[in-house]
Amino acid sequence: MITNWKEEPKAGVTFPEGFSAAGVRAGIKSLGNDMALLVCESKATVAGTFTTNQVKAACVRYSQRVVKSGTARAVIVNAGNANACNGEQGDLDNRSMAEQVGELLHISPDQVLTASTGIIGHLMPMAKIEAGVGFAVEQLDRGVETDLSATEAIMTTDIYPKYRAVTVDSESWVAPIRFGGMCKGSGMIAPNMATMLAFLTTDAHLPSELLQEALRRAVAVSYNSVTVDGDTSTNDMCILLASGMGGAAISVAGAAFEDFVTALSRFCISLAKEIARDGEGATKLVQVVVKGAETPEAAHKIAKTVAESPLVKTALYGNDPNWGRLLMAAGRAGVPFDADLIDAFIGEFQVCNEGRSVDFDRDGAHAYLKGSKEVEVSLHLHLGEATATVWTCDYSYDYIKINAEYHT
Amino acid sequence: MITNWKEEPKAGVTFPEGFSAAGVRAGIKSLGNDMALLVCESKATVAGTFTTNQVKAACVRYSQRVVKSGTARAVIVNAGNANACNGEQGDLDNRSMAEQVGELLHISPDQVLTASTGIIGHLMPMAKIEAGVGFAVEQLDRGVETDLSATEAIMTTDIYPKYRAVTVDSESWVAPIRFGGMCKGSGMIAPNMATMLAFLTTDAHLPSELLQEALRRAVAVSYNSVTVDGDTSTNDMCILLASGMGGAAISVAGAAFEDFVTALSRFCISLAKEIARDGEGATKLVQVVVKGAETPEAAHKIAKTVAESPLVKTALYGNDPNWGRLLMAAGRAGVPFDADLIDAFIGEFQVCNEGRSVDFDRDGAHAYLKGSKEVEVSLHLHLGEATATVWTCDYSYDYIKINAEYHT
Repeated sequence: MITNWKEEPKAGVTFPEGFSAAGVRAGIKSLGNDMALLVCESKATVAGTFTTNQVKAACVRYSQRVVKSGTARAVIVNAGNANACNGEQGDLDNRSMAEQVGELLHISPDQVLTASTGIIGHLMPMAKIEAGVGFAVEQLDRGVETDLSATEAIMTTDIYPKYRAVTVDSESWVAPIRFGGMCKGSGMIAPNMATMLAFLTTDAHLPSELLQEALRRAVAVSYNSVTVDGDTSTNDMCILLASGMGGAAISVAGAAFEDFVTALSRFCISLAKEIARDGEGATKLVQVVVKGAETPEAAHKIAKTVAESPLVKTALYGNDPNWGRLLMAAGRAGVPFDADLIDAFIGEFQVCNEGRSVDFDRDGAHAYLKGSKEVEVSLHLHLGEATATVWTCDYSYDYIKINAEYHT
Repeated sequence: MITNWKEEPKAGVTFPEGFSAAGVRAGIKSLGNDMALLVCESKATVAGTFTTNQVKAACVRYSQRVVKSGTARAVIVNAGNANACNGEQGDLDNRSMAEQVGELLHISPDQVLTASTGIIGHLMPMAKIEAGVGFAVEQLDRGVETDLSATEAIMTTDIYPKYRAVTVDSESWVAPIRFGGMCKGSGMIAPNMATMLAFLTTDAHLPSELLQEALRRAVAVSYNSVTVDGDTSTNDMCILLASGMGGAAISVAGAAFEDFVTALSRFCISLAKEIARDGEGATKLVQVVVKGAETPEAAHKIAKTVAESPLVKTALYGNDPNWGRLLMAAGRAGVPFDADLIDAFIGEFQVCNEGRSVDFDRDGAHAYLKGSKEVEVSLHLHLGEATATVWTCDYSYDYIKINAEYHT
């Protein structure tokens, strides 16, 4: 059982023992930091989850191989160019970025993960990349300023940087475990920028198979439960490095491992919610909860369909307690349910009982939607015990503006 | 083979022999016609396709039973109230609407189809409905004015009425076949209005099994290949009535039947494209073509995912030849393909060759998108022979406005 959860307000990806980082400007984007480097001083075990898009950037295919090896020493990230759809030259450029990091840090390039976000179909500006890697290695450091610089370097259209750190304790662990992390959301301002990246660190020791299993479970309830517009990128990835330098070691599945998964999941959810909150043009964070489903998959599918429904998202922007749209969206999720059993809630307001309209306080529900930066809509299917939560944001005029007028 | 195709510019649903109709104001909506009646003077064979949404309005469940019987004499439609999520009272009200039509026309209520579109979760205003049915029966007539009145009566937020008629000839038929039809798109202005309705007539004679098979195939390539925002309604339906009074009779599958399917499909596509063209806030009709897929299902799935991608739709609104978004959307359709084989086109401009950027005329492609009311984007997978086409529209500021601010 988790016995202590301490948010570390001034810390990020270098908070756990063993990690240093840098965020620098290489000049790939027109403004701001655009390359980040994250290094572990010893061999870290590594886990990763990657985009399921059929079109995968060079960095995704490369980093998938590094993750398979079970260990890694560094992650190099660039923003401004996705290095996707660039054929063989893209693979060569990606490899060269890893090789350069390896050379400067005296480690194998096979221990260097790569990540890119930005324009699709443009070759990487390798002279700038090379210079950026050099700067980054020089500036490797720890502490909150570094964490912030590194986070800024992976951003595209995110309005604010998303980084976090926590110290967690459990009765099943011999020592507290620290987690650090940074992520970016799916912003679109220049053509083809849309990527979710997350880089997570911990000082726990776990073998890579367990680490991978923990990350898989944590990502399912966090990053894979966040949706801005349903579009997934060619470059999405989430990487977790475990330095093993914190004292806590988990070698088998069991209570200690379950607590690790719980803590990692909660940590990832807190970062993932920031992605939805900072969705393009968003005026509110929306939590969609589906209860009483027969399976977690069914609950998730319905919650995601509701969260991605443009009609639901525009109604929420308009602060309208339009429960008909919730049911309509749920009904097209491709999951069987009994429409005569379903209850629906907007915040605390029950808006539908057993599939039928109830006489609810429309003005109150409107005021709740209008006055809240975080709102919840929920559906209860009354078919089973499974539950799922998905986070999203509303659709505003600014969503159209950001995505249609970026070229002007 | 189809030998003649004649558009009948001033005709609609009553054009084929045997049909009369009426469109009247019952006062369910705040303005305009809101009830339509369509009658066949003899027993028509009937086919229907209905929403796959788990939440089905009373009229959908009722009309599905009428279609199963194989024949029908009339269709009564109201706009302004969807009669969905109203429990048993909804079923009683729906049945009562059919009974009243039956009584006035001296036919069985089991031969009267019902359709509703409008607000979910409000009981039907039965006094108004009853008065409307009375007016409609009195005003039954033929001709273009009637066709237009009836079409207007099924509209919600459609900007213009969608009706059409054609006379078609084939070397396999003993006489020409006439088709008439009217439809409405998925408009949203009052809470929960979003329904696609289509009512089609023909003077051909076909047994109901063949008629159903023909409609199923025609709907797949027309109404089911149109998407405005991916949301499907509780009330969607498409009904085809065949009076058999035109001389052409098709009793078995074969060349004559295949020509009937071809003609019906083409007729339905012409109506369905109007739904996309008139999508909420649309500035252009977008035709998404996927070629070279292994199966028609795979092609359709990719085309639909591209057509529903908010990032694609906003880029098209912004007139940006952003081919990365096309590939990204295709890649998340859940259909395997080889990203290194794919070609992409925006109009005549090839923007991607074997998964890689090509040096195309960006200004020309921008001008094409900006200057065209109908645009085409296409992808060639080079995996097989299957093709699919899906129609949609772009996402503009007005889409958000219509869907967020309807309550003010």
